[in-house]
Amino acid sequence: MASIFGNVLHLSIFGQSHSPAIGCTLDGIPAGIAVDMDELQRFLERRAPGRSDTATTRREADRPEFVAGITDGHTNGAPIAALIHNTNTRSQDYAELRRVPRPGHADYPARVKYRNYHDVAGGGHFSGRLTAPLCIAGGIALQALRAQGIRIAAHIVSLGPEGTADARLNPLQLDEAQLTSILNNELPCIDAEAARRMHEVILGAKNSLDSVGGVIECAAYGMPVGVGDPMFDGIENRIARIAFGIPAVKGVDFGAGFGCARLRGSEDNDAYRMDEGQVRPQTNNAGGILGGISTGMPIVWKMAVKPTASIGRTQHSVDLDDGVNADLKVRGRHDPCIVPRAVPVAEAACALALFDALLEDGRFVVPPAQEQDGCSAPERSERFMSA
Amino acid sequence: MASIFGNVLHLSIFGQSHSPAIGCTLDGIPAGIAVDMDELQRFLERRAPGRSDTATTRREADRPEFVAGITDGHTNGAPIAALIHNTNTRSQDYAELRRVPRPGHADYPARVKYRNYHDVAGGGHFSGRLTAPLCIAGGIALQALRAQGIRIAAHIVSLGPEGTADARLNPLQLDEAQLTSILNNELPCIDAEAARRMHEVILGAKNSLDSVGGVIECAAYGMPVGVGDPMFDGIENRIARIAFGIPAVKGVDFGAGFGCARLRGSEDNDAYRMDEGQVRPQTNNAGGILGGISTGMPIVWKMAVKPTASIGRTQHSVDLDDGVNADLKVRGRHDPCIVPRAVPVAEAACALALFDALLEDGRFVVPPAQEQDGCSAPERSERFMSA
Amino acid sequence: MASIFGNVLHLSIFGQSHSPAIGCTLDGIPAGIAVDMDELQRFLERRAPGRSDTATTRREADRPEFVAGITDGHTNGAPIAALIHNTNTRSQDYAELRRVPRPGHADYPARVKYRNYHDVAGGGHFSGRLTAPLCIAGGIALQALRAQGIRIAAHIVSLGPEGTADARLNPLQLDEAQLTSILNNELPCIDAEAARRMHEVILGAKNSLDSVGGVIECAAYGMPVGVGDPMFDGIENRIARIAFGIPAVKGVDFGAGFGCARLRGSEDNDAYRMDEGQVRPQTNNAGGILGGISTGMPIVWKMAVKPTASIGRTQHSVDLDDGVNADLKVRGRHDPCIVPRAVPVAEAACALALFDALLEDGRFVVPPAQEQDGCSAPERSERFMSA
Amino acid sequence: MASIFGNVLHLSIFGQSHSPAIGCTLDGIPAGIAVDMDELQRFLERRAPGRSDTATTRREADRPEFVAGITDGHTNGAPIAALIHNTNTRSQDYAELRRVPRPGHADYPARVKYRNYHDVAGGGHFSGRLTAPLCIAGGIALQALRAQGIRIAAHIVSLGPEGTADARLNPLQLDEAQLTSILNNELPCIDAEAARRMHEVILGAKNSLDSVGGVIECAAYGMPVGVGDPMFDGIENRIARIAFGIPAVKGVDFGAGFGCARLRGSEDNDAYRMDEGQVRPQTNNAGGILGGISTGMPIVWKMAVKPTASIGRTQHSVDLDDGVNADLKVRGRHDPCIVPRAVPVAEAACALALFDALLEDGRFVVPPAQEQDGCSAPERSERFMSA
Repeated sequence: MASIFGNVLHLSIFGQSHSPAIGCTLDGIPAGIAVDMDELQRFLERRAPGRSDTATTRREADRPEFVAGITDGHTNGAPIAALIHNTNTRSQDYAELRRVPRPGHADYPARVKYRNYHDVAGGGHFSGRLTAPLCIAGGIALQALRAQGIRIAAHIVSLGPEGTADARLNPLQLDEAQLTSILNNELPCIDAEAARRMHEVILGAKNSLDSVGGVIECAAYGMPVGVGDPMFDGIENRIARIAFGIPAVKGVDFGAGFGCARLRGSEDNDAYRMDEGQVRPQTNNAGGILGGISTGMPIVWKMAVKPTASIGRTQHSVDLDDGVNADLKVRGRHDPCIVPRAVPVAEAACALALFDALLEDGRFVVPPAQEQDGCSAPERSERFMSA
Repeated sequence: MASIFGNVLHLSIFGQSHSPAIGCTLDGIPAGIAVDMDELQRFLERRAPGRSDTATTRREADRPEFVAGITDGHTNGAPIAALIHNTNTRSQDYAELRRVPRPGHADYPARVKYRNYHDVAGGGHFSGRLTAPLCIAGGIALQALRAQGIRIAAHIVSLGPEGTADARLNPLQLDEAQLTSILNNELPCIDAEAARRMHEVILGAKNSLDSVGGVIECAAYGMPVGVGDPMFDGIENRIARIAFGIPAVKGVDFGAGFGCARLRGSEDNDAYRMDEGQVRPQTNNAGGILGGISTGMPIVWKMAVKPTASIGRTQHSVDLDDGVNADLKVRGRHDPCIVPRAVPVAEAACALALFDALLEDGRFVVPPAQEQDGCSAPERSERFMSA
Repeated sequence: MASIFGNVLHLSIFGQSHSPAIGCTLDGIPAGIAVDMDELQRFLERRAPGRSDTATTRREADRPEFVAGITDGHTNGAPIAALIHNTNTRSQDYAELRRVPRPGHADYPARVKYRNYHDVAGGGHFSGRLTAPLCIAGGIALQALRAQGIRIAAHIVSLGPEGTADARLNPLQLDEAQLTSILNNELPCIDAEAARRMHEVILGAKNSLDSVGGVIECAAYGMPVGVGDPMFDGIENRIARIAFGIPAVKGVDFGAGFGCARLRGSEDNDAYRMDEGQVRPQTNNAGGILGGISTGMPIVWKMAVKPTASIGRTQHSVDLDDGVNADLKVRGRHDPCIVPRAVPVAEAACALALFDALLEDGRFVVPPAQEQDGCSAPERSERFMSA
Repeated sequence: MASIFGNVLHLSIFGQSHSPAIGCTLDGIPAGIAVDMDELQRFLERRAPGRSDTATTRREADRPEFVAGITDGHTNGAPIAALIHNTNTRSQDYAELRRVPRPGHADYPARVKYRNYHDVAGGGHFSGRLTAPLCIAGGIALQALRAQGIRIAAHIVSLGPEGTADARLNPLQLDEAQLTSILNNELPCIDAEAARRMHEVILGAKNSLDSVGGVIECAAYGMPVGVGDPMFDGIENRIARIAFGIPAVKGVDFGAGFGCARLRGSEDNDAYRMDEGQVRPQTNNAGGILGGISTGMPIVWKMAVKPTASIGRTQHSVDLDDGVNADLKVRGRHDPCIVPRAVPVAEAACALALFDALLEDGRFVVPPAQEQDGCSAPERSERFMSA
């Protein structure tokens, strides 16, 4: 099943870091969803490489070409297919890696699984570059959800060995100012000062030819009550399944998360109260999910991102052809910290998981049909249709 | 789930008749399968339009561009993605069809399902053109199976109102001469005389601005015993699921098929005998499948293809905008009979279904790994691997 | 994937002919569907063995025990699980079959696939008895669809070598009298005289220790326009996938089916006309499906059922232990013709396929919620819920 | 998809806390796996309720009845179905909960999703009791993996607000003494002293009518290199998907997990060295998984379990019928801490995820076929089979 996600939606991601193109297909998306290509492009640029001094110098336009599924600015019901052509590749940097695997990368297990037929250049299909098509599909999902009043935001909640920490997203309701700050600060943080400190931590790692990781928090506001399934298709399972598909993610938790293990039941339970005629939990340790089903509170989750495995320092490895120890100095262009660029990826993953769950439960609100370029509206034609 | 097929393989087909490109992704294919691009191209040309006086005049190169999944002539384990760019499109031919649906086409139900947002040009995602990517994936599957000794062939078993009929594929064992004839005759028939007569039937339909259908028979030789599953994932279910994905297919049967309903049990049962130390059924009314599982005999099945819905004659339809009767004369370029071009599509569908079943049962024989351009062979590296 | 069916619904069938029980689980069914157990029982009895002189003498109560998923006569949203305990088993009849496989049965390929670990008694998991749990799930689906105005009926359209034939179900609209006749005649036929003749054909086969097959036609009335998907999840693909899961089915076609191959396009196309403000095809050669999507016309399909493989006559087989020819006389109790008992199974299969397609498209009409034993209605509680 | 797990295996779990039975079906398991029922029973008893002063007083035999899929102590290739009958139910304890939802439970979102048709007694399908069938399937998976040399163990790594902590499982290789201690200590801990302290923490919570949570660590030893898939079907995704299906799990991480976010790349990367002719990482911060694929090192992961939501203290809730605030005192019998009983559930979940991945990759070693009760061995019969 590999690179396919979703129960009603079917996202299939393809490409290798240095193949002619990377891209995705998205099958099962309803017709009639407006896709604003400018907004999508702005979203993709939050992830794109080569944009700052904390990221790799490999610069890619990351401008998707849609070859199917969209007509006149709307999904047409057929599968969406989009490509990003790879242009700025320097494959010669990678030839040695087939023989001497990089610690922390998939080189070694991939060589075994694929019997040495895998594409090793740039990490092949394991490259973080594959998160670009995830963001194409996720960017469309974000637009579809926003039309239904669901907003998703992520930020860096902590970064680096000293745990430079940011404020937390409001777990009870959308705070528009927080979302604006995240988009405007130097790094995607709520607090400008935290962004500045994290920026320095990353530059410090870069200068010492090392790398740092961090934790990203993501929240979805406006999710209706009652979506998701018990056991293996709860909102948690769905988000976890896609989030662990983001390279370098090694942990996922929800609400109080690992911290809940240190709470007493009387502290962890979110008490209900009536509030202006509505059921309203007073806290959100559950992260908006009970029994796999949304509670109507914001969906709040975190993901731990390990430090970039590719570092400039000499590392111990082995020569797989000769079966001897070998030292390795990873060449190529790499991010000293991918956490900032992973923030929109977390939003994309969250959007896709929630979109799929809404569709499966019949809770996605199909946008109202509109007059299209001289053709009659669906409503009009429905007058004459036999069911 | 729409345009996705397979349990271990995941074929996802995308594109519309007049979108920038059509194509497919194929996830789950093992690494190390050799793909001969020239052979694939020859296979695709058997389906391609514009090649004869019995087919549409729309001429497309149908030359796939592989953007992922293949390195140095072998699958690399990552999903395969391939595109065919659409070049010879004349969308203006189709504008009226949004309003006045073609009888026998998906225009009307698609308009309801997709609320008028569907791409109507050239039939959109419902076009027979979408069988081209099916043939890309199927062509690769055919090569993978052939390396394991499995050969697949199809031909036109009957065509047109008078039922112009061809000989049948040998149901007991591969007859190389039959396969050669199919490839060399004017139409894909075993018998040259049948091919000639069918050709005339098609030209007759073309001259009367009408169309004809037919029945295609397909056989897979060399399938091992014991592959497939009871109930809903038997070989029959798998082939039927993909075969009904070919536009215009309205019936599928196996072995004696609908004819078995007129046999007595004593006639229909395939008696076993020992033959040179092997279990050998004496007949093959079962079409090589019992209880959903392969018997070791050739897999034999047929599919009924309806006459091309697009005909030049004036037909009764309705105007969906105004809710009144309307007559329709379908313009655009169309095949008077798609049966000949559907023959390789049947082979492709059969290959994909069997390939997936073999993979799921762990019965696909992964090709031996080879030395690759200076890199050590998998066997060599495996010497040093811990499991 | 074997014995699992459905995209949103997940029907999982378990059991062997002589295991302690057979049964099914049905995951994904919405909450709040009323299940009338008496009606379900009447439906199951149409399939149950031992009810007439044309069926096996193995008599089973076939009374399902629901162990989960239903509360107070309604689905409760949790997976449904139901069992039928096997009581009337005579396993000693079958011991020889592990060694000498029955022609026409799965004995031989199952032995290879399962490496001789399969349960051979009564055909094990390949037994026609497994259609009982299919009918439990299908019977619930039939009730759910009927509440939405969708009615499904099947009958024997032809039987035996001489093709004793019945009238056809009205392909344009529901004819209540036809459905009543099917339930009241000696065999499930529209025409009493056809039923009588078919009955004689079956008794004739029985007396000659042989068996006969037949063709079943099934129609679903009231299916709305616009349900189903292009390519691999069309209504045809879905019905075919489940219908080929019924043991002995060797062919499936839709509408004009294999007959469409002999029509001209001008004959096969179903012309549209307006009729009382509704789009109305004038014929239904498409069987209510174009491009995989329902047209609003009745869904009409047929399935070919081979003659019962178990016959009393001596047959040629082999001894798999010793690798020599052997003759076989099948003992045990068997139907000389399973076609009559397969009629409700066709209805069940059709209902499950359409139910799943409606759910996936968000077109299943969830029944209105009601006051339940003193608890407030959902509507009432929804007043206080935050989304 | 709800309560179904697996790509090749298909585990479907059914039942409600107070329905006649709970159970599971397991489709797709190969034939010929020996199932030791006594060993399975011992495994189930590690999870069963009513066994100690730290658990609920509801005592259930939890003795599964296998109704299909196992013959003569081996899987027979047909789906496994097993039931546990519910006997010790006191449903009257729960009637109020339909109206006044328990904080921390699924009562409220389930009422919305299922429109008040859900079975509220004992938590219905959301009950922790549903982990019993998970352990039936998982117990079989554990036996299948053990036959292939794969051993799985879990323990409580920390518990309660003060974080009473246990030693860690050896991340580099199996330590048999650790596994023995876990099974023999008062609670499933490596260290007897930690077990004693945790026991006291639980009793303290019980006495204050409160509850505590904890963190469970699980390791799988002996997993071969090269199993799993990139992106959405990596080992991490698979384990996370099933682990979040265990009620009360709110976080899952792998290897260094959330802690990796505080490491530098030079610390987090597991350096390779040759060791007796084998590639051997020197540390295991990756938890045995890189790029979703197993590295040959132990698979190590943790899950955070929240404190039991059902506590004896009075809590704030609402009356959903009247839309007013209401206080709630949860009656019924509950565990003050479910962490100890969740330990075998973690092992079961891990085993099922790895078993499915091995099967999908064709890496599960089918056990050698044996002579069975007088029948010839598969090997013998294969001599006469045509492929």
